[in-house]
Amino acid sequence: MDKRELLEKLNLYVILDCSLINYQDIERVTREIVDAGATFIQLRHKTIFTREYFNIASRVRRLCSSERVIFIVNDDVAVALSVDADGVHLGQEDLPLPEARKILGDSKIIGVSVHSHGEAFMAASYGADYLGAGSVFPTRTKEDAQVRGIHFVKDIQNRVDVPVFPIGGVNLSNINQLLDMGIHRAAVSSAIVCSQNPGIAVTKFRKILKKC
Amino acid sequence: MDKRELLEKLNLYVILDCSLINYQDIERVTREIVDAGATFIQLRHKTIFTREYFNIASRVRRLCSSERVIFIVNDDVAVALSVDADGVHLGQEDLPLPEARKILGDSKIIGVSVHSHGEAFMAASYGADYLGAGSVFPTRTKEDAQVRGIHFVKDIQNRVDVPVFPIGGVNLSNINQLLDMGIHRAAVSSAIVCSQNPGIAVTKFRKILKKC
Repeated sequence: MDKRELLEKLNLYVILDCSLINYQDIERVTREIVDAGATFIQLRHKTIFTREYFNIASRVRRLCSSERVIFIVNDDVAVALSVDADGVHLGQEDLPLPEARKILGDSKIIGVSVHSHGEAFMAASYGADYLGAGSVFPTRTKEDAQVRGIHFVKDIQNRVDVPVFPIGGVNLSNINQLLDMGIHRAAVSSAIVCSQNPGIAVTKFRKILKKC
Repeated sequence: MDKRELLEKLNLYVILDCSLINYQDIERVTREIVDAGATFIQLRHKTIFTREYFNIASRVRRLCSSERVIFIVNDDVAVALSVDADGVHLGQEDLPLPEARKILGDSKIIGVSVHSHGEAFMAASYGADYLGAGSVFPTRTKEDAQVRGIHFVKDIQNRVDVPVFPIGGVNLSNINQLLDMGIHRAAVSSAIVCSQNPGIAVTKFRKILKKC
């Protein structure tokens, strides 16, 4: 299956945001998420040095080495390449997509965070493999993130031909608002990793999204 | 000339630390330094996002595109690769040297900052092309840097077979202390880029180091 087909099939994107997890719990949480059937996982750590990010990414990568798990590193193209991640997720302040593509090659997945139509069209035209669009709901993970709402995500999805994952503040209480709009994908962070039982949270999200 | 021969010949390493330069002056300062004959230049910017670092590095790279100038990007392997820098300089918190080597290949220059004998031996054995050893003097650029002194640098130089550049607080008043110890190389930052006339400062440092 090529990466396009593969990405089309994914509906739950788990963001393993290390700022929300105790350092010593990262591997346990990863294991629980993977065991619960998460197949699309992004490691994110904004506040550490590259060496430590590389070390954590290497360990998490091993836990996500099953063929059915797609493992994405946030922000850092060199770390993604070093740990042989399946791809990288780029924000608007990261290396430009065409540069990341030159380094990673065509086989790797590159996702891009978009907060406007302009950013979405540009990312899609530069060959992003998927988009993260938001913030769809208010979120504590990125308190300064502007809430763009569900209609924004829906509109982006209608206008680009790559999968669009609504991101920001998605939880078990509001995910039905996405489904009601015909959006059957979601990127979820705190509602999974801050949950008392991340595995059970993954199972619940998967069940809801599978209904679509 | 291969990179080893080339590096052996260099004695002045100019660290273009952007935290010491007004944003709009970076290109002017670079031009003055290059025009004054600097042949080994490192761009360093610790406090900005990768996108902006890439943008600045692209511009500075163009100004350093003369064949006789070696242009090194600090810390960020992906930016170094993207702008086709001649190499990268790694601190102890950056991507490990073997990983950077895998990404950059053998032709690129990789330098490493070392603050102990252990770090120096490890970097040399992993194939660093040069070392930056220090801090040799007290420095305002990295106020938390431990001063290791001239004897440390001299001892490292005696024990590894790659060029060692003393770094940290080197200026026109103390550089003779290095020469007196038989050290004829130096990495210089604020004494050049914060000087009223960076070009004249480069000329003075070159003259002093050429005497050796």
